[in-house]
Amino acid sequence: MGKLVCFGEIMGRFSPPGYLKTIQTNSFQLSFAGGEANVAVSVANYGGDVKFVTKLPDNDLSRRCIRILRGYRVNTDDVIFGGDRMGIYFVEKGASQRPSKIIYDRKYSAISQADPSEFDWDKIFEGAEWFHFTGITPALSENMVCACRDAVKAAKKKGITISCDLNYRKNLWSSKRAGEVMSELMPYVDVCIANEEDAEKVFGIKASNTDVTSGTLNEEGYREVADQLIQRFGVKKVAITLRGSISASDNMWSGILYDGKQFYHSREYKIHLVDRVGGGDSFGGGLIYSLMRGDDDKTAIEFAVAASCLKQATEFDFSESSVSDVELLMNGDASGRVRR
Amino acid sequence: MGKLVCFGEIMGRFSPPGYLKTIQTNSFQLSFAGGEANVAVSVANYGGDVKFVTKLPDNDLSRRCIRILRGYRVNTDDVIFGGDRMGIYFVEKGASQRPSKIIYDRKYSAISQADPSEFDWDKIFEGAEWFHFTGITPALSENMVCACRDAVKAAKKKGITISCDLNYRKNLWSSKRAGEVMSELMPYVDVCIANEEDAEKVFGIKASNTDVTSGTLNEEGYREVADQLIQRFGVKKVAITLRGSISASDNMWSGILYDGKQFYHSREYKIHLVDRVGGGDSFGGGLIYSLMRGDDDKTAIEFAVAASCLKQATEFDFSESSVSDVELLMNGDASGRVRR
Amino acid sequence: MGKLVCFGEIMGRFSPPGYLKTIQTNSFQLSFAGGEANVAVSVANYGGDVKFVTKLPDNDLSRRCIRILRGYRVNTDDVIFGGDRMGIYFVEKGASQRPSKIIYDRKYSAISQADPSEFDWDKIFEGAEWFHFTGITPALSENMVCACRDAVKAAKKKGITISCDLNYRKNLWSSKRAGEVMSELMPYVDVCIANEEDAEKVFGIKASNTDVTSGTLNEEGYREVADQLIQRFGVKKVAITLRGSISASDNMWSGILYDGKQFYHSREYKIHLVDRVGGGDSFGGGLIYSLMRGDDDKTAIEFAVAASCLKQATEFDFSESSVSDVELLMNGDASGRVRR
Amino acid sequence: MGKLVCFGEIMGRFSPPGYLKTIQTNSFQLSFAGGEANVAVSVANYGGDVKFVTKLPDNDLSRRCIRILRGYRVNTDDVIFGGDRMGIYFVEKGASQRPSKIIYDRKYSAISQADPSEFDWDKIFEGAEWFHFTGITPALSENMVCACRDAVKAAKKKGITISCDLNYRKNLWSSKRAGEVMSELMPYVDVCIANEEDAEKVFGIKASNTDVTSGTLNEEGYREVADQLIQRFGVKKVAITLRGSISASDNMWSGILYDGKQFYHSREYKIHLVDRVGGGDSFGGGLIYSLMRGDDDKTAIEFAVAASCLKQATEFDFSESSVSDVELLMNGDASGRVRR
Amino acid sequence: MGKLVCFGEIMGRFSPPGYLKTIQTNSFQLSFAGGEANVAVSVANYGGDVKFVTKLPDNDLSRRCIRILRGYRVNTDDVIFGGDRMGIYFVEKGASQRPSKIIYDRKYSAISQADPSEFDWDKIFEGAEWFHFTGITPALSENMVCACRDAVKAAKKKGITISCDLNYRKNLWSSKRAGEVMSELMPYVDVCIANEEDAEKVFGIKASNTDVTSGTLNEEGYREVADQLIQRFGVKKVAITLRGSISASDNMWSGILYDGKQFYHSREYKIHLVDRVGGGDSFGGGLIYSLMRGDDDKTAIEFAVAASCLKQATEFDFSESSVSDVELLMNGDASGRVRR
Amino acid sequence: MGKLVCFGEIMGRFSPPGYLKTIQTNSFQLSFAGGEANVAVSVANYGGDVKFVTKLPDNDLSRRCIRILRGYRVNTDDVIFGGDRMGIYFVEKGASQRPSKIIYDRKYSAISQADPSEFDWDKIFEGAEWFHFTGITPALSENMVCACRDAVKAAKKKGITISCDLNYRKNLWSSKRAGEVMSELMPYVDVCIANEEDAEKVFGIKASNTDVTSGTLNEEGYREVADQLIQRFGVKKVAITLRGSISASDNMWSGILYDGKQFYHSREYKIHLVDRVGGGDSFGGGLIYSLMRGDDDKTAIEFAVAASCLKQATEFDFSESSVSDVELLMNGDASGRVRR
Repeated sequence: MGKLVCFGEIMGRFSPPGYLKTIQTNSFQLSFAGGEANVAVSVANYGGDVKFVTKLPDNDLSRRCIRILRGYRVNTDDVIFGGDRMGIYFVEKGASQRPSKIIYDRKYSAISQADPSEFDWDKIFEGAEWFHFTGITPALSENMVCACRDAVKAAKKKGITISCDLNYRKNLWSSKRAGEVMSELMPYVDVCIANEEDAEKVFGIKASNTDVTSGTLNEEGYREVADQLIQRFGVKKVAITLRGSISASDNMWSGILYDGKQFYHSREYKIHLVDRVGGGDSFGGGLIYSLMRGDDDKTAIEFAVAASCLKQATEFDFSESSVSDVELLMNGDASGRVRR
Repeated sequence: MGKLVCFGEIMGRFSPPGYLKTIQTNSFQLSFAGGEANVAVSVANYGGDVKFVTKLPDNDLSRRCIRILRGYRVNTDDVIFGGDRMGIYFVEKGASQRPSKIIYDRKYSAISQADPSEFDWDKIFEGAEWFHFTGITPALSENMVCACRDAVKAAKKKGITISCDLNYRKNLWSSKRAGEVMSELMPYVDVCIANEEDAEKVFGIKASNTDVTSGTLNEEGYREVADQLIQRFGVKKVAITLRGSISASDNMWSGILYDGKQFYHSREYKIHLVDRVGGGDSFGGGLIYSLMRGDDDKTAIEFAVAASCLKQATEFDFSESSVSDVELLMNGDASGRVRR
Repeated sequence: MGKLVCFGEIMGRFSPPGYLKTIQTNSFQLSFAGGEANVAVSVANYGGDVKFVTKLPDNDLSRRCIRILRGYRVNTDDVIFGGDRMGIYFVEKGASQRPSKIIYDRKYSAISQADPSEFDWDKIFEGAEWFHFTGITPALSENMVCACRDAVKAAKKKGITISCDLNYRKNLWSSKRAGEVMSELMPYVDVCIANEEDAEKVFGIKASNTDVTSGTLNEEGYREVADQLIQRFGVKKVAITLRGSISASDNMWSGILYDGKQFYHSREYKIHLVDRVGGGDSFGGGLIYSLMRGDDDKTAIEFAVAASCLKQATEFDFSESSVSDVELLMNGDASGRVRR
Repeated sequence: MGKLVCFGEIMGRFSPPGYLKTIQTNSFQLSFAGGEANVAVSVANYGGDVKFVTKLPDNDLSRRCIRILRGYRVNTDDVIFGGDRMGIYFVEKGASQRPSKIIYDRKYSAISQADPSEFDWDKIFEGAEWFHFTGITPALSENMVCACRDAVKAAKKKGITISCDLNYRKNLWSSKRAGEVMSELMPYVDVCIANEEDAEKVFGIKASNTDVTSGTLNEEGYREVADQLIQRFGVKKVAITLRGSISASDNMWSGILYDGKQFYHSREYKIHLVDRVGGGDSFGGGLIYSLMRGDDDKTAIEFAVAASCLKQATEFDFSESSVSDVELLMNGDASGRVRR
Repeated sequence: MGKLVCFGEIMGRFSPPGYLKTIQTNSFQLSFAGGEANVAVSVANYGGDVKFVTKLPDNDLSRRCIRILRGYRVNTDDVIFGGDRMGIYFVEKGASQRPSKIIYDRKYSAISQADPSEFDWDKIFEGAEWFHFTGITPALSENMVCACRDAVKAAKKKGITISCDLNYRKNLWSSKRAGEVMSELMPYVDVCIANEEDAEKVFGIKASNTDVTSGTLNEEGYREVADQLIQRFGVKKVAITLRGSISASDNMWSGILYDGKQFYHSREYKIHLVDRVGGGDSFGGGLIYSLMRGDDDKTAIEFAVAASCLKQATEFDFSESSVSDVELLMNGDASGRVRR
Repeated sequence: MGKLVCFGEIMGRFSPPGYLKTIQTNSFQLSFAGGEANVAVSVANYGGDVKFVTKLPDNDLSRRCIRILRGYRVNTDDVIFGGDRMGIYFVEKGASQRPSKIIYDRKYSAISQADPSEFDWDKIFEGAEWFHFTGITPALSENMVCACRDAVKAAKKKGITISCDLNYRKNLWSSKRAGEVMSELMPYVDVCIANEEDAEKVFGIKASNTDVTSGTLNEEGYREVADQLIQRFGVKKVAITLRGSISASDNMWSGILYDGKQFYHSREYKIHLVDRVGGGDSFGGGLIYSLMRGDDDKTAIEFAVAASCLKQATEFDFSESSVSDVELLMNGDASGRVRR
């Protein structure tokens, strides 16, 4: 199995203990996370060879972040040091009818202000087989739009497979600007990942007969969404996660994978949530790992959904599952019996 | 919107971490709470102008309590300092079939031993529009029976709206004594609040066809209860919370509001509980706020029930919701989707 | 009510906070537990007179363990000090589809290496009425096989009632060796306790029409299992716990008790789990206590199942329930309403 | 060595983490302590046979307290259950020039309101050799004055040695009332323990040439104090602790023991304090243990001072030292080198 | 006593537990602090009437900050909401030879980007008697240079006393720029506060015969510094803190106050540090309070130094002392004896 | 600078919070440490290229350990997985006269039972320049005596510099056996590291006029010790740490380095201890790093002593200092002033 390169922002995540709200507490756990870093850690945990590329300020907070990533066997040799700050965010965990709430303080982060020329893609992609980024990276700044453009071009030239998780963030850019930029980047993308809302928010492609807020998701509608993405941008595969939000404590979770011919809808899990943030990224990580090791599409979507089901029963953004953990679940044992 | 005055005891609440029992732990979180203080904080959080009146001993524990209340924008200028002690209680959180358990150590508290003459109601009620107390206050001592009598008379004279939450506490007084005292106070009350058991425990008014322990609550029966309270005491509105206790982890939750003519039964929520203590008070806080700002009864009961639903998905006694948090839920989004 | 003697290993249990995995945390809570120690604590909590016998190394960790046991009113006068180490284990709590996971580090523990002659059973059993051990003890080492053999012989000679929880542990011995040893010990046993898998794993006695991993448990099949244990070994009563594992967060829980004539299947509880480890032991503790105080079989199985239901809504291995806690539940109040 | 009986109040102690002030924190550690309970635990830790007598309310907080005491091998069989509440107090740890600060909430405690007749001293003193109480107990209430009078009379009749730590508490009674009561009780006392201020505060016996606030303590002056206590009340031995308070972080610590003939001033320790509360009680515990096992006065005072030096380098009120810990220090090794 | 207005940045401070370094931990305590906010809290704690003016982003972190300030009785009515972010910083506590270390992430904070016109000084200063700011505020941005210029002009016009703590921060501006700006602002200042290095760093005014790194501070040299500040800028009083840094655990601490005629050097304290950050601000707070209530200069400098001595034995930036706490120390009791 | 290889055991270290004793707490922090692992981390933190070789069981505790080491940039590619268990130990931190106390549970660890042939030294030493081990490794078992013999022979053959820290552990072997084994290994050693007691305990070489327990260490005596080690075993350099233990809270700390000609005694530090465990290893790490990068002996001993001084003001076994942290201190700034 070849090398995966992930490119994007990594932030400090401050979490109150248990179900406390940010406004209630003076005690926080600091972890690190980001759409692409989460994928990097997932794949490294499965045993993959992964490099994570970003820019971080030169201080002890960044050094802690690097120490943590290195601990997960993620290569950080191409991380650039400099700039003003690391983005941070606060995640208060919801419960029952009370929604989880995220406060971002990521503006002016080192990577968002980085010059595109700081990233030497030829060197970064040496020996790489797969490149992954998300829609968050170009949303950070115009500089990052350029950096992503440079990256996908360099990757394509080297014959590297490219995956992109649309990951629309309304705080970072408008649907209009997202649509413009992503439309330019998508033709380079081989595998497009999205959640049940992204395609509509970014490209205006809406699943028919679906109401996300009421939790009614229509399988056929998402096949059409996937098909349109394939038609419009020439992507080879589209994977979409389908979250049915019963409450902040319980979610339905499944995924689809479509290559224009075969359509797979995975097993659906009812998850009693521990921490749902990072769920989509662990889906991406599972999918990329499974496809990189040569699994067929049916296996890949089941692996991705089982992996991300386990992640959502795990604290913090990073997946902590091994391949055997995931396979145990996808092969049917969801009983949660004690393993001794 | 005018000023709300709340009068009653505030206590130190010691909570073990997570689901530990009091007997298992040496680690406690200290928060402050009380039937009327909880209402005060609720309404202050919504932006209301609130004064809380009590008596506390002159020590650092009280100073911490005052610091906390002031932080919530509750006016504490009329708190009296003196007396022997602040009441405390220990709340161990139940789960599944294991019930939550409260140990009170509130006897001899400064307020319970306060002389009624210490409270200068004319001064306290200056500029007030609404006065709230609960059945806990007169239950504390005969002195407090007098203080409540003084308070409702002074309030009535000034044309202040009076609300009372029956809040029957069997550890503090007998049903008989409660009935005598509350029967004397109720004629002054405009808005009477109760839970599914209070009317029976205090006045012997029982909902027909209802078995609280089995969780079967009969809507029609509670309309009759409300009607009898209106008939017997001349209160203008009666609001009753209806808790269906599936287990210590999951409860059904709704409320009714009746003014003798229009009867409203709110939407019912299934709550996966975080901390149910203070649930009734946050209902009272929501109701009073909504009525004070001029909402109609239908809106008021939905606001109150949504507010108290959110509170029960929140740690500690105090509601931490804003008006927009509550309105988001009462307007239909109970999906608990992450808010970014 | 007479004295109960429990014999076996007690270990240090390290638990990460909340739902963190062992690999995610540097923070652990240390409690102490073991199949027989858990039973000892259960019965001592109900007010029983209990002695716990084991061997522990002579260090402060053991002294802490003894301090804790003594706190629960368990007599530790016959604990032997010496040997190399106390066994330890790590329990990470699962959630939803993510299973709980136990890492054992119990090899070379003082008790596993103890010489059988170190235990003076005549002295230990002075004044005893009931002796309890589990299949874990002989599984520790050949020395412990001897010690158990010595113990049951000495107990039988003194007319002491003997109970044994099969408690099969695949990490400690093979099904084959377990079958050989337990077949030798069972003829001394009066009350045999097992979970839904033990009889099959140890003696090859399988419940018909039952699939443990899918959660389908067949009542009639377990009556047959109990009957075979009675037929084969002459035990007087067989009690079996039936766990239906919906997920790592929710389990169905009931038990059966059979004496060859009367068959009782208890009420079944749906438990929202707090900590399921030690569930079976608290069942054993409840059963032994109830039988020791002279309850009939129907009461005993209901007491045992209610006791172990409450334990699984309680943190750590030890039951923390009183007799009245258990009786409240078995008499029907599973509503989890707050007790003040 | 015979049995020691200790009689007095035990309270819940709430401690903020580290050096936080009570007003700064919502997080507390709960331990249990009291002048006589601290002595009981000290002696039990040394291996002595100790009974602690008190009255506690019938609730889980008391049950936790009893569990803790039992864990230390303190016999609690004669603890009476009933009454309203357990006294509590808050200890914030000072540092440097900032003094430690204690907030008491002990009024109305079960023991302070107990009827003297509830204590059956004949039964309590069965098999006892030594009885210990402190001046705090009679200071609690007039009822406790009677109870102490009953106790010392009963003890004297049985030929039991009696020790009393004067332990003057200005919050509980005036110097005048203390002088009256203690003057009545002292004639029964064999061993009188005091700190550098008690004799003056209770009996007006002041050490010459000494200024406690400036830290100047005059050895000769304290010999005179001891001598006067012997002359006035006929006590056999007087032991006085001498604390030189450099700051809230560093104290000088020594003690004297005088029997009217031989005067011993112990080695003096400079202590970098961990927790000085309970220091005097651990001195009393060390002294009583050493005298009970038959040590000469020189050994006893060195044992007591070394024991209480170690306690003040230990968290919470209870001494956690073994005999060998104390002897190692009193025999000269104060280097604090790591023990492996 | 009149009203004090403080103007400046308030930041979130993240502190690792105990002596852990930032790079070692994932656990942080969040408090709030800033040079002027610390002064505001000090004076409010003494009972003063204080308003704090700043700009904060409109999110829950700011709402928590406001809640905390309000709890201390600081008026926050003129805080402006808007802008991108709240500045944060990480403080790792040094010990012995290991220095404390602060990582700032304050760039782009809401206040640093605020438009000077957002602050309506006429309204802000209504009823004010004293205005305090520090050199940190103009160091934040050119906009804040203007805002400070506007503020001092408006204050001067209203006859408000102005104090300024030079508080030089090399990360925010160069000595050159600091000198230019502060030279323009100083002519408006009545009371100038500085530490042992500020005058040299900002204005090049160096104390003779002093080596800060070696801890040798020359009293006479600092009188000269004060004198030059008075001569050059016409300030009425100069107060300088003198820190002799023995190690990260122990510091010498005193202060001088000079009005051009009378020179006072306070008592010097040897402080065993708990948290030295905010020490200078608590000195400023003590000085301003003492002068505002009309103390003479000798009292004021002793009050300021005692107050800041206590602060440095207290966790976090805020002073938690009352007037009586400070007066007890300045009147001579530095023994740290327990206060009950 | 070339590659360093360290070989030895790494253990789980459980630490109670603050100054709590093991017997007092149920809360532990888990870190990882070992004589050689501590050196590896030190050097990796300075930027060195380091490989750590050991054997660990195949479980999540080991995986956490590896994750942590990798985070510090220590290469773990040659760690062998298998065997029964990871050694653990408990460190309770002493204070003042109360000594720190370590409980080991390291017997039967995977490495102690490893077969010497499992370590392929030719492969391990590929590209290595320096090999470090301590006397703890051969003390673990006879197998490890062989493994160390194999290692030093293989290293010598490749011309790799060998350092050994004598690190005598009386719990692991007798002085006699240590003397035999180390005498065989020392002839291969180039740089011998020891503390003030090791040479006497292992080889009977005692410093004249020195009494370790009283804290009197004689510089000249240690030069003689170093000289004898050089004479007897032909080692090139001897470095000895000199700890003057004033108390468990304060230690004097310096070191000597002797090459048979030049004798250097470093600056001496008075350390207010945060955590002294691992102090000697951080000295070794500093010395090896400094010598590897080509510093002269005077620089090397000052670097080593400054590095280990900082470590002892840092929590846990691992040094967390950078080269610039160490150089700042060795170049004279011990004032502990805040670094911003």
